[in-house]
Amino acid sequence: MRILGVDPGLRRTGFGVIESNGARLRYVASGTIVVPPEDDLSVRLKVILDNLREVVRDTAPDFAAIEKVFVNANPVSTLLLGQARGAALCALADSGLTVHEYTALQIKKSVVGTGRAAKAQVQAMVQHLLSLDGAPAADAADALACAICHAHIAPLGDRLRENGALALRSRGTRLRAGRLV
Amino acid sequence: MRILGVDPGLRRTGFGVIESNGARLRYVASGTIVVPPEDDLSVRLKVILDNLREVVRDTAPDFAAIEKVFVNANPVSTLLLGQARGAALCALADSGLTVHEYTALQIKKSVVGTGRAAKAQVQAMVQHLLSLDGAPAADAADALACAICHAHIAPLGDRLRENGALALRSRGTRLRAGRLV
Repeated sequence: MRILGVDPGLRRTGFGVIESNGARLRYVASGTIVVPPEDDLSVRLKVILDNLREVVRDTAPDFAAIEKVFVNANPVSTLLLGQARGAALCALADSGLTVHEYTALQIKKSVVGTGRAAKAQVQAMVQHLLSLDGAPAADAADALACAICHAHIAPLGDRLRENGALALRSRGTRLRAGRLV
Repeated sequence: MRILGVDPGLRRTGFGVIESNGARLRYVASGTIVVPPEDDLSVRLKVILDNLREVVRDTAPDFAAIEKVFVNANPVSTLLLGQARGAALCALADSGLTVHEYTALQIKKSVVGTGRAAKAQVQAMVQHLLSLDGAPAADAADALACAICHAHIAPLGDRLRENGALALRSRGTRLRAGRLV
């Protein structure tokens, strides 16, 4: 399962791609899309749209993961972040990807083990979990953390569904194409 | 000059296309993109992206105009609107259009003559200016008003630039490829 994590922002949008095989994680690619600040808003959003679509074309992920956003104290920042996030989600959906959303708490717990982790701890744990030579830049690390979170949580959901289905099956129900009949 | 006006929203995105020839305005098309509320956010944003791109393909506008957004009192609404606006701007930029932004005050002044116009007044004046049989729905009317605003303001800017250039030219400057040399 190849997963693309995205950390959207109007100035810098981080991305990170990993492969997960059971409990094993492998780093594929990561980086930061830096958006020129002087352009019109629509031009800036198109930079995010185009570059993220290119990342998807180049790395062919199966799923995308993104952090659920909490509203910022500053409403102007919230609006700008919302627009950048809209462009990122458009790029992912336009590339045919299903997008999974995780809270910052889920991501930090999944990567560091606690929800109160500092940025540097997230970077260090991402480096450790993916056996990288150095810590990735902050935006790329957040994006990779989001992908790692999906790698940890998604199979858990699958196992729960499987167990649930097995339990029901033993009580006389059947599965057809993944649905109980 | 054919102009596409857009009034973005996560539930309903209005659009309206007009043609302007000097002071004459002609209605081309308008409508509302209704976004299913039950879907994932990325799927909902893709509905806006796909439908607006289709509007551009079908109506071939030369310019796009959109209302500058004021931040909402409710930060959650601001974030949702920001994401919808991001998707709309992506659709326009992805279709190769330059997007012009106007404040609500500019739009209302341009259409009704005063910045304190009620929604119903905007709808009535849009109907009158475009010689429509009935008033367009609220979202489509706002989008058409935005396009009308661009039709009124853009040539004014062109005339001012032209006069300015002529005045400078008479003082010994020259124009090359639209720039003073």
